[in-house]
Amino acid sequence: MLLKRLREEVLDANLELVRSGVVVFTFGNVSGISREEGLVAIKPSGVPYDELTAEEIVVTDLDGRVVETNLRPSSDLPTHIELYKAFPTIGGVAHTHSEYGTAWAQAQVPIPCFGTTHADYFHGPVPVTPNLSAEEIAGEYEKATGEVIVRTFRDLDPAAIPAVLVAGHAPFAWGADAAEAVHNAVIVEYIARMATHTLAVNPEAQPLARALHDKHFFRKHGAGAYYGQPKG
Amino acid sequence: MLLKRLREEVLDANLELVRSGVVVFTFGNVSGISREEGLVAIKPSGVPYDELTAEEIVVTDLDGRVVETNLRPSSDLPTHIELYKAFPTIGGVAHTHSEYGTAWAQAQVPIPCFGTTHADYFHGPVPVTPNLSAEEIAGEYEKATGEVIVRTFRDLDPAAIPAVLVAGHAPFAWGADAAEAVHNAVIVEYIARMATHTLAVNPEAQPLARALHDKHFFRKHGAGAYYGQPKG
Amino acid sequence: MLLKRLREEVLDANLELVRSGVVVFTFGNVSGISREEGLVAIKPSGVPYDELTAEEIVVTDLDGRVVETNLRPSSDLPTHIELYKAFPTIGGVAHTHSEYGTAWAQAQVPIPCFGTTHADYFHGPVPVTPNLSAEEIAGEYEKATGEVIVRTFRDLDPAAIPAVLVAGHAPFAWGADAAEAVHNAVIVEYIARMATHTLAVNPEAQPLARALHDKHFFRKHGAGAYYGQPKG
Amino acid sequence: MLLKRLREEVLDANLELVRSGVVVFTFGNVSGISREEGLVAIKPSGVPYDELTAEEIVVTDLDGRVVETNLRPSSDLPTHIELYKAFPTIGGVAHTHSEYGTAWAQAQVPIPCFGTTHADYFHGPVPVTPNLSAEEIAGEYEKATGEVIVRTFRDLDPAAIPAVLVAGHAPFAWGADAAEAVHNAVIVEYIARMATHTLAVNPEAQPLARALHDKHFFRKHGAGAYYGQPKG
Repeated sequence: MLLKRLREEVLDANLELVRSGVVVFTFGNVSGISREEGLVAIKPSGVPYDELTAEEIVVTDLDGRVVETNLRPSSDLPTHIELYKAFPTIGGVAHTHSEYGTAWAQAQVPIPCFGTTHADYFHGPVPVTPNLSAEEIAGEYEKATGEVIVRTFRDLDPAAIPAVLVAGHAPFAWGADAAEAVHNAVIVEYIARMATHTLAVNPEAQPLARALHDKHFFRKHGAGAYYGQPKG
Repeated sequence: MLLKRLREEVLDANLELVRSGVVVFTFGNVSGISREEGLVAIKPSGVPYDELTAEEIVVTDLDGRVVETNLRPSSDLPTHIELYKAFPTIGGVAHTHSEYGTAWAQAQVPIPCFGTTHADYFHGPVPVTPNLSAEEIAGEYEKATGEVIVRTFRDLDPAAIPAVLVAGHAPFAWGADAAEAVHNAVIVEYIARMATHTLAVNPEAQPLARALHDKHFFRKHGAGAYYGQPKG
Repeated sequence: MLLKRLREEVLDANLELVRSGVVVFTFGNVSGISREEGLVAIKPSGVPYDELTAEEIVVTDLDGRVVETNLRPSSDLPTHIELYKAFPTIGGVAHTHSEYGTAWAQAQVPIPCFGTTHADYFHGPVPVTPNLSAEEIAGEYEKATGEVIVRTFRDLDPAAIPAVLVAGHAPFAWGADAAEAVHNAVIVEYIARMATHTLAVNPEAQPLARALHDKHFFRKHGAGAYYGQPKG
Repeated sequence: MLLKRLREEVLDANLELVRSGVVVFTFGNVSGISREEGLVAIKPSGVPYDELTAEEIVVTDLDGRVVETNLRPSSDLPTHIELYKAFPTIGGVAHTHSEYGTAWAQAQVPIPCFGTTHADYFHGPVPVTPNLSAEEIAGEYEKATGEVIVRTFRDLDPAAIPAVLVAGHAPFAWGADAAEAVHNAVIVEYIARMATHTLAVNPEAQPLARALHDKHFFRKHGAGAYYGQPKG
């Protein structure tokens, strides 16, 4: 079996997505990439999670051609591929229709950074893409979804803002590998829930001051980080 | 035992309804139909789900006459029968008082298609019936409930919009069989939750553009579908 | 052990209250009455539910004097006793601080009958008591809580409206026995949740038409009931 | 192993925090203090809860110097230490990013006492700290967080109001020991949920009358308490 370890990581990440309560039925998919081999491993389309095996994880090249297994890859594969091509530092992508994250995507409102939980993970609001044009929808729709995400990040660093809300659709999150992509997808849901309640309590709530936002982000990320245990 | 397989499907579908978290106590019921024999299998009235057996599933004809078992059928049977008579393509009906779906029925507001999750299942908003008249309520109430649903679909395709909100009451969903009816009932609840949160975040949220709505619906339904694994 | 069966019913009802998710920690209590003996069985005060035994259920007379066991009864006992004295048809009382039911009590807004789920159980809105006066609070507070509930029902039938919201406090529910009181307490929470969401979707939502309200209530209650299986 | 019993209490309290559903991932931490020895036991930073052992609980002195174990303490340790220094009656501190409690902290609105559940635990609203200045954030941030909490309590009794919302951050709660601190952290989340729903139902909802607030608080606290079983 090709890329055994990557497939297993992708399988585990897909199952973790379910355990975290951010998918219902077969909504959602996770992929991982082997940069050396230029191959992507992704959940097959429409297969129930409780039956999924590592053998069924579909491996494709960066043109979306299936390299192994007879199953169709998730129909969102072309979106994942656009992200891997444009964001060279990422190793995994997770897509969910999680309840509150999707609501913000549907509302077409970026999630403001209302607090330090958000700032620990995102160095700015979680952005919303523009809407796709009728031509993009009629053409290679899933590829166009990837392209509009990439355009949304023209002036943003995907490593500092590891998720996006696709307008009228749902969140995509990413990370160093498939597991971190899932972790970030769960965080998007959690901060979306808290942001919704924040507005319910105070419709005039203001984003966190820049100094505190920076403090929390850099407490966990980059050279000056001091959160968690030292690595290595 | 008559219609053993249909009864078991209907039993499983009723239990799946409970596992999915869309019913409390004995609220809710699922039926299935054998079109060849013109017989309907439905949950008995007021029996707790955890004690339900296939033998207790009530079988009736399309006039609502019990053919087997001594239990009373769900009091909503006449509603199910009207749907089977008017919608020849459906094979199962599920009724719940699920928390958010019921709230939209109580609010008497159709669920707008705010996103692709909705568009994957419903080719338009989930409609609300008009209110019943005092005469309809005083007469054969449950039959009138079925009739008002059928009137609501006069210009709608029940295969493309597999659920309805009965005004001041709760959702009814349907599908090719009892299991699909339950699946659609769970989807109604999920999109109702997300639509509620969407309005909380942005009271001016707009429905999905028609092109994207069509794209998602026809990605999963009809001749051009490419979601999931090929059938057969 | 005195009143063994009643104690066991009251124990089971208290544990069912916890399983139903309507209490946290030790908030909440259930009692039952033996009308023949004029004795009430109630949860002891502040004892964790997971350690509770039938022996620890406290038995008191209708003056609140403990007849057996050394434990203090729930501090809400005098409220329960007032209800038993004023409402001769009831056999059980349940008190919770359930999340949404308590929110309506805190909001001091009666729960309108927005739909048939409500109408199946309550023949009218779930009422809110007036606030207690400073004198009532300083005096026999828990007895005064019972008295204000009884005053609220001066023109209402406690059998047709088996619950109340005590202003600024939380719901009390009752029924033919302790188990039914718990059932009604869970229903209050469920309709409070749905009513909250109904208002979120449509702040102008209107109560159910009287004819439909009556239809649903009398479908399940009284001489013309036809819901559930025939009794006996 | 130094302070074996305190470590075990702190371990149990951290695990209880997770079981209570008020933390996700590694967000949140609990500490306990030995006043005699002037030592604090606290969760290590960024270690998953399901792998945590009593040996890994970090013991430090009141200057934050690690006395035993090689793991880094929670990065919030300096906040806990400020609270122990300023509030001599407390023996445990719990910090969460619980969903609704954090939303109120983000909304920067004190939680009003809308009902008796709140009054049973807090003799007044749950306060919000002022925002930290850019200098405080750039300096010893976690220590400054403790200092701003202490300033917020200049005219408040930490024993009568055992929690605070740090503006734009999240709740801190405390108690006689680590277990009581966790209990109070769970209560903060519960009253924050109910207060959110209360405002949803009635945006003009009013705080509880002072007499009833006092009644409930003193029913459970101080010399005249009569809730629960007599101690000793």
